[in-house]
Amino acid sequence: MTAQAEPLHDIAHLGNVELFTPKPDKSLWYFRDLLGMEIAHEAGDSVYLRGYGDYATSTLKLTAAATNGVGCVSWRTTSPQALERRAKAIEAAGLGIGWTNGDYGRGRAYRFRDPDGHIMEIYYEEQKYIAPPELHSNLKNLPQKFTGRGAGVRRIDHLALLAKDVEANRKFSQDLLGFQLREQVRYDQGKTEIGSWMSPTAIHHQLAYVVDVKGAHGRLHHFSMWVDNRDDVMRAADILTENGIFIEAGPSKHNNSQGFYLYSYEPGGNRVEVYSSSFLVVAPDWEPVTWNEEERGTGTYWGATLPDSFIQYATPDVQGSVAATPEVLKEAIASLS
Amino acid sequence: MTAQAEPLHDIAHLGNVELFTPKPDKSLWYFRDLLGMEIAHEAGDSVYLRGYGDYATSTLKLTAAATNGVGCVSWRTTSPQALERRAKAIEAAGLGIGWTNGDYGRGRAYRFRDPDGHIMEIYYEEQKYIAPPELHSNLKNLPQKFTGRGAGVRRIDHLALLAKDVEANRKFSQDLLGFQLREQVRYDQGKTEIGSWMSPTAIHHQLAYVVDVKGAHGRLHHFSMWVDNRDDVMRAADILTENGIFIEAGPSKHNNSQGFYLYSYEPGGNRVEVYSSSFLVVAPDWEPVTWNEEERGTGTYWGATLPDSFIQYATPDVQGSVAATPEVLKEAIASLS
Amino acid sequence: MTAQAEPLHDIAHLGNVELFTPKPDKSLWYFRDLLGMEIAHEAGDSVYLRGYGDYATSTLKLTAAATNGVGCVSWRTTSPQALERRAKAIEAAGLGIGWTNGDYGRGRAYRFRDPDGHIMEIYYEEQKYIAPPELHSNLKNLPQKFTGRGAGVRRIDHLALLAKDVEANRKFSQDLLGFQLREQVRYDQGKTEIGSWMSPTAIHHQLAYVVDVKGAHGRLHHFSMWVDNRDDVMRAADILTENGIFIEAGPSKHNNSQGFYLYSYEPGGNRVEVYSSSFLVVAPDWEPVTWNEEERGTGTYWGATLPDSFIQYATPDVQGSVAATPEVLKEAIASLS
Amino acid sequence: MTAQAEPLHDIAHLGNVELFTPKPDKSLWYFRDLLGMEIAHEAGDSVYLRGYGDYATSTLKLTAAATNGVGCVSWRTTSPQALERRAKAIEAAGLGIGWTNGDYGRGRAYRFRDPDGHIMEIYYEEQKYIAPPELHSNLKNLPQKFTGRGAGVRRIDHLALLAKDVEANRKFSQDLLGFQLREQVRYDQGKTEIGSWMSPTAIHHQLAYVVDVKGAHGRLHHFSMWVDNRDDVMRAADILTENGIFIEAGPSKHNNSQGFYLYSYEPGGNRVEVYSSSFLVVAPDWEPVTWNEEERGTGTYWGATLPDSFIQYATPDVQGSVAATPEVLKEAIASLS
Repeated sequence: MTAQAEPLHDIAHLGNVELFTPKPDKSLWYFRDLLGMEIAHEAGDSVYLRGYGDYATSTLKLTAAATNGVGCVSWRTTSPQALERRAKAIEAAGLGIGWTNGDYGRGRAYRFRDPDGHIMEIYYEEQKYIAPPELHSNLKNLPQKFTGRGAGVRRIDHLALLAKDVEANRKFSQDLLGFQLREQVRYDQGKTEIGSWMSPTAIHHQLAYVVDVKGAHGRLHHFSMWVDNRDDVMRAADILTENGIFIEAGPSKHNNSQGFYLYSYEPGGNRVEVYSSSFLVVAPDWEPVTWNEEERGTGTYWGATLPDSFIQYATPDVQGSVAATPEVLKEAIASLS
Repeated sequence: MTAQAEPLHDIAHLGNVELFTPKPDKSLWYFRDLLGMEIAHEAGDSVYLRGYGDYATSTLKLTAAATNGVGCVSWRTTSPQALERRAKAIEAAGLGIGWTNGDYGRGRAYRFRDPDGHIMEIYYEEQKYIAPPELHSNLKNLPQKFTGRGAGVRRIDHLALLAKDVEANRKFSQDLLGFQLREQVRYDQGKTEIGSWMSPTAIHHQLAYVVDVKGAHGRLHHFSMWVDNRDDVMRAADILTENGIFIEAGPSKHNNSQGFYLYSYEPGGNRVEVYSSSFLVVAPDWEPVTWNEEERGTGTYWGATLPDSFIQYATPDVQGSVAATPEVLKEAIASLS
Repeated sequence: MTAQAEPLHDIAHLGNVELFTPKPDKSLWYFRDLLGMEIAHEAGDSVYLRGYGDYATSTLKLTAAATNGVGCVSWRTTSPQALERRAKAIEAAGLGIGWTNGDYGRGRAYRFRDPDGHIMEIYYEEQKYIAPPELHSNLKNLPQKFTGRGAGVRRIDHLALLAKDVEANRKFSQDLLGFQLREQVRYDQGKTEIGSWMSPTAIHHQLAYVVDVKGAHGRLHHFSMWVDNRDDVMRAADILTENGIFIEAGPSKHNNSQGFYLYSYEPGGNRVEVYSSSFLVVAPDWEPVTWNEEERGTGTYWGATLPDSFIQYATPDVQGSVAATPEVLKEAIASLS
Repeated sequence: MTAQAEPLHDIAHLGNVELFTPKPDKSLWYFRDLLGMEIAHEAGDSVYLRGYGDYATSTLKLTAAATNGVGCVSWRTTSPQALERRAKAIEAAGLGIGWTNGDYGRGRAYRFRDPDGHIMEIYYEEQKYIAPPELHSNLKNLPQKFTGRGAGVRRIDHLALLAKDVEANRKFSQDLLGFQLREQVRYDQGKTEIGSWMSPTAIHHQLAYVVDVKGAHGRLHHFSMWVDNRDDVMRAADILTENGIFIEAGPSKHNNSQGFYLYSYEPGGNRVEVYSSSFLVVAPDWEPVTWNEEERGTGTYWGATLPDSFIQYATPDVQGSVAATPEVLKEAIASLS
């Protein structure tokens, strides 16, 4: 065996996602009353939310804005030293923005942009959630009482971003953040990278990049919250349907990730997933699973297939529709330069 | 913040567990026909088995022997370099046995004993499972067809060992293997360590040490296999009951780990768990949750409580029964020297 | 085949159960906020509640009272004619009380006592539930929106009453109400009838009589509400536990009825079951399944066994405890006269 | 209240369905190995199968034939007298064929045709299943051991037939068999009856008639088997997919019936449903729920929608495709005479 670099282990997990919404009151109703999240904090135009099982104070920042989409994506590092190392490497790669004092509940953070332009940050210090008396759980290893309200999402799971150039962003995630590549969709005999699913932890994926068929930048495909059981996903489907929320796809089982998915649009327009099942990856030398046009199919192992809007729609929205056939996707990606 | 060592990340996951059985045919029937595992290999007195979702060729080695209990416990490292580092550190600690060429499906391994005397090994090279045609799954990220036979356990999850001195073994696991301590049971105002649950990965625990109330060494409390849904655990209970297997406890929900458990004795006498639910730990600075006498209670959050045999019985069995009251446990541990 | 009377089909289903509670506010909190029932009406000392799937306006009447226990048990007949027929037959049997104008949401009813003294009534006219706009479901065959609040019990399922003389009450239910006997527990080589489970519909049982080991009369063992999935029962266990409600037994699987059960005490002291699974009986000539001392065991197929309180405690409570061994039960029943 | 006839209660439940298959060996593999049914008997070109929870000896008769489709549909009556009454009434209606000695496990039966030409029969005497030793369950109220093989379908649930004139067949079922109408799909302001769901028991529906858009007669839409949990339906989807069986729709939740469905084509071509959830109807005066074009939508509450084949395909197949728009359906039905 020739000498080979050891895998980076500097990023611990996805820590926080900021979503923009032009309808902050209704979006809050969706996340608090329908998904069952708790408000941890409010400041300025933002509300800080959390799932009942999140150990951190807050994992979702909902910010009123003129349009929808994703704001800052925060990653926790495995140590203070890892934070310094990653900040230096990212800076050296020319993607750095600079240090901030950290948002609510988190210590100083280094901000940067991924190659596609999404804003991200890394941080180490994190305030653990201390439940107020009325939310104190009698299960000692649960940071917060299980209230049973709404869908009862437990914790943040992952997010999927669109990118004009999937390969560049995937390589950035692997090389600079140390994420492990778990699965890919590649068309045209493997030459065209349509999507890549990666993770810094045993969770199947915490970050996915999928090609932006409209050639835009910095957009969000979906943000995903975890529930413990498939029955919880179906219960969420009942609750969302009863409350007039548009369900785009699912409940169904993905082929990629084997996750049991339910995609709806929160009132602000962002696609949100309630998610369960899937599988863990613990192999240090995991061989990425690659799906071609045929194998990928509709992205569904069984159940409701992903509709065309799953490829066409993202936030903020871009007008017009693209015939996202394998051929068109291939050409779109070929035209990247 | 003062300088602080970064957490070790040299062990990737639990790789294999060897179980001894005086009734090899019946034990094989239990694991293959009732739990639904596949035979990957047979050699000498051993049968090598796997769950349908295990990426490795084999994760359970069943070895015919005069008595029951646990044989070698194998841990995969995160890299070849990590293997060398850990081997040196363990050797330096005086616990080493030496290198072997590796068992079926794995490369060279360094063998050692934990402080209680259980045999373990670490290795890096692992043969990924290649399914024969009749076991080829049409789900590309599944290493093997889901046959639906028996309980259909997906993968190895964890094991619990008894130890005369829990603290010594817990410290060994933290310091030399780099496991993160997740939860503890401590009696007598925290002075008496009854049990410790640890993991090298996001899985809640892959190794637990619990006090051996009979003062013996090298014994097994239980070996645990994962299923994806709580319904699968209950389905396993139906199947085990219909086949006359003794169910000791569950299906029920643990307080510690929040796991949904089902403990039965395989025909060879070893306690085996079919397990689901629980929660993942991704915090790099996870603060261990500690339960005292009162909080620990029966170990059950709701449902079937753990009976006295859960404390008294382990393999190989030691005659006699001990009144495992908190006081007795305290004294037993106080007498360790 | 000799001429044989056709089975009666005059009772359609259990319609309503009245529970007494000395803690009406807390009991209401339990049924509305924890179990998720809706208030349909309030009058005098009573609150009328319903499950989201009940087609009738109300199925549970909660009445403030000095003590706990069961009030009037209402059964709907299959037709107006069936109501007249049953009223006459019951009157002729000397158990009649007389006609009433009917409680909230129901037409005129004929009241009577079962041999043990519990008050019951039969009625035919029933007001179907019309949801107010805010509770209108967008699922057309659902009478009320699924709110997702608390355990979300769907509908009334059954109740179990204690009786000094099970046989007399069972015969009354079969002969005068036309219930089909589904299962029995008989001790002492079948001579001593400990409990009988009966139903007027395909639901496994809607009425059970179990021996009152304390020799009292007119008491309630438990009242049971249905949820659609076993996961809902476990979710209910989480919610009840988080809210400090005493769980007596379960979640577990009964041998008798195969039901998946969860027994808790509502704040007023009455035992309430959240229930799912079980099986339907459609055979017109169903042969009752009879369990003897040994076969009955703890009443549990797997999981949490039923504790001694399950036999000792009922509402209203009677002081003292009885060693409910098979021998004692046999003697207690032998002494009935 | 004016005098009103009492509801008939002469039919107890669906007893047996005969399916024709041109691929008997592969169909048997599907029902026995994939769905998990047991063979109860074999005779001539037929194999008699059963679900593990069916109390009758056999509930599915699989008969080798030149083409696929449905053979005789058998209904059990509530009593011997009910059998005579129904036979006379059907004969008087001019639909009778005559008495037979009864098929395997059943007593004498009266055969007839429904208005669309499907062959049916009614019978009372039924042989209860006595499990051979190797299939004896240790759960006393379970007629057969739960083997855990394949999808493990518990019992027969219902069947759906196509009919040129839904109204005529629905009225026949109500008037002559005494079935209660549960739900309907009616287009064109209620004037055009597209489908009707009926039942003789609390099970939501045991017989459905749906319009045959190709104007044929005597065809089968689907045959449905029950599993206890939605997880079992999803497990069935995994098993069917792994074994190359075509899944047409689901797992998803119907709006009509609220059932959780999975439709696949068994190798002989017949559409078979694995089914769970749904709801019971116990109201003696149930008001049928009627869905118009808009409300019916795709027939799905959430999840995978029913594809066009769900309307176009039935067995035996009729060549050609019809644009089954509401307008076309309306005209097709208007042309019935």
